[in-house]
Amino acid sequence: MQGIWFSELQTPGLAISVKLKKTLHHEKTPYQDLAVVETESYGRMLLLDNIIQTTVGDEFFYHEMIAHVPLNTHPNPRTALVIGGGDGGVIREIIKHPSIEKATLVEIDARVVANAREYLPEISCGLDDARVEIRFEDGIEHVRQMENTYDVIIVDSTDPIGPAVGLFSAEFYRNVYRALKPDGLFVAQTESPLFNGRLIRRIQRDLAEIFPIARLYLGTVPTYPGGLWSFSLGSKEYDPLEVDWKKAPQLVTRYYTPAIHQGAFALPPFVQEILEKRDEEEF
Amino acid sequence: MQGIWFSELQTPGLAISVKLKKTLHHEKTPYQDLAVVETESYGRMLLLDNIIQTTVGDEFFYHEMIAHVPLNTHPNPRTALVIGGGDGGVIREIIKHPSIEKATLVEIDARVVANAREYLPEISCGLDDARVEIRFEDGIEHVRQMENTYDVIIVDSTDPIGPAVGLFSAEFYRNVYRALKPDGLFVAQTESPLFNGRLIRRIQRDLAEIFPIARLYLGTVPTYPGGLWSFSLGSKEYDPLEVDWKKAPQLVTRYYTPAIHQGAFALPPFVQEILEKRDEEEF
Repeated sequence: MQGIWFSELQTPGLAISVKLKKTLHHEKTPYQDLAVVETESYGRMLLLDNIIQTTVGDEFFYHEMIAHVPLNTHPNPRTALVIGGGDGGVIREIIKHPSIEKATLVEIDARVVANAREYLPEISCGLDDARVEIRFEDGIEHVRQMENTYDVIIVDSTDPIGPAVGLFSAEFYRNVYRALKPDGLFVAQTESPLFNGRLIRRIQRDLAEIFPIARLYLGTVPTYPGGLWSFSLGSKEYDPLEVDWKKAPQLVTRYYTPAIHQGAFALPPFVQEILEKRDEEEF
Repeated sequence: MQGIWFSELQTPGLAISVKLKKTLHHEKTPYQDLAVVETESYGRMLLLDNIIQTTVGDEFFYHEMIAHVPLNTHPNPRTALVIGGGDGGVIREIIKHPSIEKATLVEIDARVVANAREYLPEISCGLDDARVEIRFEDGIEHVRQMENTYDVIIVDSTDPIGPAVGLFSAEFYRNVYRALKPDGLFVAQTESPLFNGRLIRRIQRDLAEIFPIARLYLGTVPTYPGGLWSFSLGSKEYDPLEVDWKKAPQLVTRYYTPAIHQGAFALPPFVQEILEKRDEEEF
């Protein structure tokens, strides 16, 4: 392992290391430590507080799965909100849907957007679309203030430590419910089924109390711990397992397809067990 | 990152590191460097030539996917051959199928089996089943000598460097074809779709020339590079996409299910592109 490497401690006993060609940028923003590096294996990479957020090489897995599953579940999504996601990857996927009239990005840290624009054009390229509005404010606060506004809300947050903790709370999910239209739905990234089972179980139980339809789905994300990631979906009316595929838009994608959409909800027994486990412990 | 860690260079620019509780065993066998370590995140782990082969924590992903896909594709598998796989994980899955009368393990390195028996009982526990025969010989040679013998052949090899290179050759696949019964099928682990695209493409083309049915499927393997792994299947008669699930045995598994079997063949566009690419280069 010669040369300069970046290492992320993914769990107390597990680390991923990527060889760097170059550090392109490094700053302390008002909210976090931000770096953009160029890696050998995955191209350019965005780090926030020394955690890999996205890479040009593998970002499509995550961004396609968090965006197209809810957008294809809704038969006619016109307004979408992204909380977090300042790199622009989710926005880029959202505006592939011809029904979208307005996509709002609420990112607390303007420096993430500025650096994504400068260093990650492949990911941020959708941010200048005329349908996109960018607001630099607290997503928790934004959702608290909105009512009956969005067809789809996507929570593309950092891990549940520090400022993002509130994005994993039942109170937040109740506010998301209120901010959605009467037939709206939402998706959040909800960490690793291998390492965050208790968190996923608690979120799924919260969602089942708030939304008529609550579901979990999985997707590959190579640079995240264990390579397998979970997404939690709460919906007022539409079921992601009953999409009318004949009416879905033709999308140019690299990972997502209708078959992969369906397959993502086929949970392995070890994940079913996580959801069904009795657990009296505090989260 | 305090303490003692094992690091594997998965690609020239990518490494995985696992924190060790203890090194249980380390030896040079006639064929390779072998170590068994106890890790914090994945429990006990088998290393061959400093490459992670399997861990007690995540072995079920790989072993279930390489075994149950071909065994459920065959309507009545009675004889199965495993090449490599000295840890016993594939054998343990094979003998879950009630139709199996004989499962032959051909492992070149007796020390792998001995150490798996001693240190990895959760994985090797099937090796003492009365239906299992273990032969310490070269899998390439074994397949060359057999004809019309096996219903299912599973190639659970190390990476295509050193002694395993021959297990990825067209000549070997032709011998596998001959060693199979007239309606037999085989599966091999064929590395990462993210990092070994050219290898996968070449194997799929070789198989398509030799077998009436050649298919690729994917599965999660957390401790392998990128967390996403490929398996290549060649079949004389039965199509893995046309399994009669009503007749399939009820299996106790942690990852594999009929829905995941089906979903594993739904290839993402980026993998389809790998297969369709024109490529004049040498492999």
